[in-house]
Amino acid sequence: MIAEILSVGTELLMGQIANTDAQYISRRLSELGVTLYRHTTVGDNPARVKQALCEALSRSDMVITTGGLGPTEDDLTKEMVGEFFGLPMELDEKSLEAVRARMCRLGREMTKNNNKQAYFPRGAVIMPNECGTAPGCIVERDGKAVAVLPGPPREMKDMFERQLAPWLRKRSGEHIESRFLRIFGVGESKTETVLLDLFHGDNPTLALYCGAGEVTARISARVPLGADANALIDPMEAEIRRRLGNAVYAAYGPGEEVSLASTVLKMLMARGETVTTAESCTGGMLISHLIDCPGASAAVHEGHVTYSNEAKMRVLGVRAETLEKHGAVSAECALEMAEGARRASGSDWAIATTGVAGPDGGTPEKPVGLVYVGIAGPDGVRAERLMLRGDRDWIRTLTCQNALDLLRLRATAR
Amino acid sequence: MIAEILSVGTELLMGQIANTDAQYISRRLSELGVTLYRHTTVGDNPARVKQALCEALSRSDMVITTGGLGPTEDDLTKEMVGEFFGLPMELDEKSLEAVRARMCRLGREMTKNNNKQAYFPRGAVIMPNECGTAPGCIVERDGKAVAVLPGPPREMKDMFERQLAPWLRKRSGEHIESRFLRIFGVGESKTETVLLDLFHGDNPTLALYCGAGEVTARISARVPLGADANALIDPMEAEIRRRLGNAVYAAYGPGEEVSLASTVLKMLMARGETVTTAESCTGGMLISHLIDCPGASAAVHEGHVTYSNEAKMRVLGVRAETLEKHGAVSAECALEMAEGARRASGSDWAIATTGVAGPDGGTPEKPVGLVYVGIAGPDGVRAERLMLRGDRDWIRTLTCQNALDLLRLRATAR
Repeated sequence: MIAEILSVGTELLMGQIANTDAQYISRRLSELGVTLYRHTTVGDNPARVKQALCEALSRSDMVITTGGLGPTEDDLTKEMVGEFFGLPMELDEKSLEAVRARMCRLGREMTKNNNKQAYFPRGAVIMPNECGTAPGCIVERDGKAVAVLPGPPREMKDMFERQLAPWLRKRSGEHIESRFLRIFGVGESKTETVLLDLFHGDNPTLALYCGAGEVTARISARVPLGADANALIDPMEAEIRRRLGNAVYAAYGPGEEVSLASTVLKMLMARGETVTTAESCTGGMLISHLIDCPGASAAVHEGHVTYSNEAKMRVLGVRAETLEKHGAVSAECALEMAEGARRASGSDWAIATTGVAGPDGGTPEKPVGLVYVGIAGPDGVRAERLMLRGDRDWIRTLTCQNALDLLRLRATAR
Repeated sequence: MIAEILSVGTELLMGQIANTDAQYISRRLSELGVTLYRHTTVGDNPARVKQALCEALSRSDMVITTGGLGPTEDDLTKEMVGEFFGLPMELDEKSLEAVRARMCRLGREMTKNNNKQAYFPRGAVIMPNECGTAPGCIVERDGKAVAVLPGPPREMKDMFERQLAPWLRKRSGEHIESRFLRIFGVGESKTETVLLDLFHGDNPTLALYCGAGEVTARISARVPLGADANALIDPMEAEIRRRLGNAVYAAYGPGEEVSLASTVLKMLMARGETVTTAESCTGGMLISHLIDCPGASAAVHEGHVTYSNEAKMRVLGVRAETLEKHGAVSAECALEMAEGARRASGSDWAIATTGVAGPDGGTPEKPVGLVYVGIAGPDGVRAERLMLRGDRDWIRTLTCQNALDLLRLRATAR
């Protein structure tokens, strides 16, 4: 099946928001085995919506629209789909009831425009909206299909996963299952080289994604509906793990959110251990990533940002001589920061970061991007030197990622 | 002038990245007074690129492309533009020299494919790439124009600002100048209502953008090239400030990056004051936002994350009785956290956060979203109660924003 995405919304053409809906749907279609040839975005203009729809359906089997389902006059996506297929708009009592109930729950008045949200092209499969007011629908005719989704990302994702994805699976008569492996410490091109021959497979297929210094490998297997895809996926996962070793830090399914921070946190919780932080260049970003994860309080009780030398001495007990002799950006300082934080907090582990994040402050001996990470634990304290490239935010982000990974490797090696 | 954006890149159709280039260009075109009717995205497929280009130019005066300028075989955007206009590709020696110099600097070998990056459709205006290898170009013919930009956002933005924006300005014979006002503490719909009559103006125009609990108002004035737009912008800014008061926290030009954190930091630096943080629910996010800003070390020396009650007592001196009687999520605790952090650090100001960020931990008396912010300063200590809605990340983000704004208002009122 060949599909296109048609995004409707003047706010997209004004650049007020990025089209994250199109990205999400694209990724999911690729995981579901649907081929996508084009994204188109037009404003809330009925003639241009209809024109774009007509063009897209002349090229493809299916069009997935987002946006233009609101209650206002210029929300007209559904109406244009009806017009295109020559289908009259008909009231769906169940949807009207749902819209009414929602407005009532929110304490808002039901307007005539809200009624509009309960009308659909005749014969449409209606997709209730579990997160908002505007229901979506699927209209099929003459071998062509249009799925109409709401624009707000939360509503769109929920409707896609609960209703459109199963519809697509059923229609294709087969099932594509994906598993993701998250990889840290091996770059994209190195990963690609090491796995090169595995990309040629037809079933399962392998694809790589990159972001924040990490690589994600997606293994997708296609099986008849009802069959088990794991028989195809498991050997591929095993082979990747054999080649990349413990650089593979997590395996998970679609829809799961996994990060180095959540992986480290889960690992600590499973071991009944705690971690504290002593941050200089990362300035709170490290502990913030840990506390992003629900349930963090089990493994993270406190953390310190010691940006000044004075704070490093007073809060963490870094010695004045160390700072004088080696400077704040040094392995020695990182070691004392980590030791001091571990001692003061009574945590099992402590991570310390100190470095030159830039844009200023670099010298020939200690350039922007030079970072030391100290890790103190039950097995002693060690420091690692990193030489990172990028702007301030990127250097801080990579420092956090490296620090978390160092803790992961240290703790699992014990 | 009516324009369209044509994005080229299979990674966009696979959902590996969001099309932030299209968002950036859309926003800037709107600021430059160029009307945009459509975004189209196609993969790295020559036939589909050419087809999409042909369609776009049949509807519009100008097409701006991004992507497909790399050295590989399937990077063919420039070539398709040449084919469309019937122009042969010609070598530009200056570009070849620049590509060569860059590869040499990076210590990489110059391949035959890199040569390709120095070929352009005959007569094209070449736009050198200051941040990467692939130059862009502008091709004009028969009243239609195509501007070809690279895909990587940093390269695209640099080329857009340095080269395409001046070209668009010159071509239009007029100049659109924009100023942005950042607003916090008044919601979007309230801001819209208060400013309603100002949206009807033709020159200057007013537009609102939203994000992270903030509203940005854009004032744009159109003047002949060389004239001063401030005479039109200044009165509008004054009127908005008159209506919204000190909810307007910053005014700035295009390309400048402004946030509540950077505004608070600048304010403190100007006053020669320092701030420290004592975070519970925000877990380091607050100080991380402050330290995001280059030069932060002048005003931020340290901060503490005290997630457990034990840490609140030991690090900040919160009293056990306070925690027993009122709990950690209370005004009393926020006050003692802020006082303790200010005392320990010797900073002029201290911000404390404590709340229920969720998803678990809420009770009928203290539901998810209940947050207290304490601010201690030279004029004493006060706590504010916030009732926020959203998921964990959003509640933490809004807490940081509110905390920074409370400090801003407190400090400026002194």
